[in-house]
Amino acid sequence: MSVSLGELAVRFGCELRGDPEARVEHVATLANADRTALSFLANPRYRPQLATTRAAAVVLNAEAAAGCPTHVLLAENPYATYARIAAVLHPSPAAAPGVHPTALVAASARIAPSAHVGALSVIGERAVVAERCVVGPHCVLEEDVRLGPDVRLAVRVTVHRGVELGARTVVQSGAVIGGDGFGYAPERGTWVKVPQVGAVRVGADVEIGCNTTIDRGAIEDTVIEEGVKLDNLIQIGHNVRVGAHTAIAACTGVSGSTTIGKRCMIGGHVGFAGHISIADDVVITGFSAVSRSIAGAGVYSSTLPFEEAHTWRRLVARFKRSGLLEERVRRLEGAAGNKSRQEEDP
Amino acid sequence: MSVSLGELAVRFGCELRGDPEARVEHVATLANADRTALSFLANPRYRPQLATTRAAAVVLNAEAAAGCPTHVLLAENPYATYARIAAVLHPSPAAAPGVHPTALVAASARIAPSAHVGALSVIGERAVVAERCVVGPHCVLEEDVRLGPDVRLAVRVTVHRGVELGARTVVQSGAVIGGDGFGYAPERGTWVKVPQVGAVRVGADVEIGCNTTIDRGAIEDTVIEEGVKLDNLIQIGHNVRVGAHTAIAACTGVSGSTTIGKRCMIGGHVGFAGHISIADDVVITGFSAVSRSIAGAGVYSSTLPFEEAHTWRRLVARFKRSGLLEERVRRLEGAAGNKSRQEEDP
Amino acid sequence: MSVSLGELAVRFGCELRGDPEARVEHVATLANADRTALSFLANPRYRPQLATTRAAAVVLNAEAAAGCPTHVLLAENPYATYARIAAVLHPSPAAAPGVHPTALVAASARIAPSAHVGALSVIGERAVVAERCVVGPHCVLEEDVRLGPDVRLAVRVTVHRGVELGARTVVQSGAVIGGDGFGYAPERGTWVKVPQVGAVRVGADVEIGCNTTIDRGAIEDTVIEEGVKLDNLIQIGHNVRVGAHTAIAACTGVSGSTTIGKRCMIGGHVGFAGHISIADDVVITGFSAVSRSIAGAGVYSSTLPFEEAHTWRRLVARFKRSGLLEERVRRLEGAAGNKSRQEEDP
Repeated sequence: MSVSLGELAVRFGCELRGDPEARVEHVATLANADRTALSFLANPRYRPQLATTRAAAVVLNAEAAAGCPTHVLLAENPYATYARIAAVLHPSPAAAPGVHPTALVAASARIAPSAHVGALSVIGERAVVAERCVVGPHCVLEEDVRLGPDVRLAVRVTVHRGVELGARTVVQSGAVIGGDGFGYAPERGTWVKVPQVGAVRVGADVEIGCNTTIDRGAIEDTVIEEGVKLDNLIQIGHNVRVGAHTAIAACTGVSGSTTIGKRCMIGGHVGFAGHISIADDVVITGFSAVSRSIAGAGVYSSTLPFEEAHTWRRLVARFKRSGLLEERVRRLEGAAGNKSRQEEDP
Repeated sequence: MSVSLGELAVRFGCELRGDPEARVEHVATLANADRTALSFLANPRYRPQLATTRAAAVVLNAEAAAGCPTHVLLAENPYATYARIAAVLHPSPAAAPGVHPTALVAASARIAPSAHVGALSVIGERAVVAERCVVGPHCVLEEDVRLGPDVRLAVRVTVHRGVELGARTVVQSGAVIGGDGFGYAPERGTWVKVPQVGAVRVGADVEIGCNTTIDRGAIEDTVIEEGVKLDNLIQIGHNVRVGAHTAIAACTGVSGSTTIGKRCMIGGHVGFAGHISIADDVVITGFSAVSRSIAGAGVYSSTLPFEEAHTWRRLVARFKRSGLLEERVRRLEGAAGNKSRQEEDP
Repeated sequence: MSVSLGELAVRFGCELRGDPEARVEHVATLANADRTALSFLANPRYRPQLATTRAAAVVLNAEAAAGCPTHVLLAENPYATYARIAAVLHPSPAAAPGVHPTALVAASARIAPSAHVGALSVIGERAVVAERCVVGPHCVLEEDVRLGPDVRLAVRVTVHRGVELGARTVVQSGAVIGGDGFGYAPERGTWVKVPQVGAVRVGADVEIGCNTTIDRGAIEDTVIEEGVKLDNLIQIGHNVRVGAHTAIAACTGVSGSTTIGKRCMIGGHVGFAGHISIADDVVITGFSAVSRSIAGAGVYSSTLPFEEAHTWRRLVARFKRSGLLEERVRRLEGAAGNKSRQEEDP
């Protein structure tokens, strides 16, 4: 795919400083670009690389454009504009409309003529696959699943009965949507399984990462609102609701019945307790334990940064004898007759 | 499915307060029930919803029944009784006995006539699938796998060679049972793979979550005892033993050769070191690091609850200069001639 | 498989103390060995079991050999020698050369005659499967994938377009290599997907665990160097580089663009921030948060060991009021006129 800078400028509303006839064929980093490459500058720390890049053109903002030796596409949000141009230069592999002869489609399923159903996929009764969907090889859609238009399922995605995915939603390989939630009633030292009769409703423009799991609701549905982005190996428990445009990084788990607000940014390896509520516009740093509700927007953390192990062991030892230190301070205060600030250990 | 309250009362040993001819068709939450719904009250925090629920009937205990405006099914353990009734109202989708024509079954495998083997599943040599098992589509059972009666494998479950699953055990989609354990012998800066020749033995009435992985033993078997419940995305290392009726929440990892006792409750995102032993009836709160053995029943934790990030940074800074604070206290004690409580930093 | 001790001694360069005609058939632990078993002693804590083992022969080092009542194979590195002998006694199940009739192989793919392609696997256009590879059932190799000689893919491994795996690399069941990285450009409260146009290059002699996910690069490739060992349920973000012979335990996540050095040992449940660099020969203890770069070899930790929950709650309460304790010490210092060591809270 080769595109002229003039065409890109018109199509993406950029101001072009340079030759409109110059062409780019692929994207590259500033450091490794060649004369057919388009690159971009969004993170200021890469700015020194502008001087030496061999890229044909760079997408950047007005402030950075001054010293740039290449053709320039000016954009207010260079990263977003780069993303759109990259999608033109590197289109997703095409998937021909039609059902692969080895796919197994139930008689009552409805597959739009423009949709693609890949090799060895299994589509259950009454499932609906809308216009221009791409269902990759080895996917399983159980009965009553509904895919909106332009949904893309990568490879061996499992979508359990009754789950709905909104338009343009993308599911990466190995994800499981609508498995049974983790619900058991304790009874005399054993567990009685609680049937999980809800489903999962996923909005439009959601992305779900590789091997991520989203459980079906116990009674009502688990809900992933529009525009949510979930990384790989995330666990979403039953009856969770994730608000619109929230992004969650890998290895995070959300326990059952917890609600996360809109436009939140959740780091990797975060754990959420169940039955809590997180406000809109909350940021949680990676590796934090969210054990109670959060009522307002802001940044929250319980991340303990590492140290060299010998230093760390001393820190932990002091942490564990902190009661002794408080006691020593109390005795000093007593001796000084200065008891006014004293606090009892609860 | 529609059932009369009289039939439910007889079948599940409840006292009925209300009309035995009244019928329910499905389950619902108290808040969202309609006139054909059965609901339940187990968590006291939902008690205020009793007054306004439109459910046909509610399962609850005698104490809560007083103010309930609906028909009532009295149960000592309302949640467990609800679970059993829900299974009647919402039966698992039926799976017709027989082997799907696209499944590949080795000549020496034995499939009970009442068992179901789904589309595109692969069953290896000498595998045994007992009465009334349901093997979902895209499952792979390698050679010498043995499924007890009434086992249910959801979609694309992988069971490696020689693994045994006890009666009524349920495995959710994407789980892998019997992959190679993580065993390598260090040798001059590289790793020599140690063959993993054990298998996995899973007891009866176990449930294994979506995309959870249980490794085969290095020499002897990894063992999951009866009644264990494992949530999604859990890692069980080689030669681990999980005791009967223990429940483990999502994203938890158990390192090799660790033994967990019976009836334990393990939170999500917990990490267990290898080669340790955990007593029966232990509770571990979510996000804890279990780095040494636990000899007795009790509740254990290393969960650090989060704070607003600015506050958190100050807490971490103080934690990291805790040695300085100890030193300041030591000097004050010295000045006060009060050295009796002094402790040296180890 | 039955082998004489004499043959094993010659083949693996061990000194034999005992009968060269004696034969072993399988491996076993010292505690549970029978008269046809070969066992080994590497961890000194099992040394007391030597006296009572019924093994036919034990692999151990010269120091431990003194009191051993069985035939002995002397090795400098008994665990590595045991590993090699175990591979002889317990060979991997054979896979006949050839393509299973139900596999779907694109016309332009090249499959070596000595390679095995399992049931229901799907091989894309221009993919290359080299000599003696074993591709298990239900694997999907997209277009332009390249497997070096002797690669083994277990069951339902997904390898996305353009990914390369080096010679002898092993991928366990359910792993996904080359899914899209987690890249989105923020724009007015929503996210624009950034096409992930790099691939993944995996070196020789790598092992990748069950359900582990390795994302393709955003522009350039994600790289796993030779000899790396990745356990189950690990997440490797886009453009990460993992150095040769590094081993990473289960449930660990590495955020995008982070570089990990050679010969590192990373515990389970560790989280790495993105865009950081870890030196060679670094050890990270399990459950640590690696939030910044590490410049030199050493052991690093942020693991907080657990306590009984009541004790833990008091420790956390003291941690959270640590500012108050500092203030109390400051007042004591003021009263004592001893202000020289005082520190302001930043």
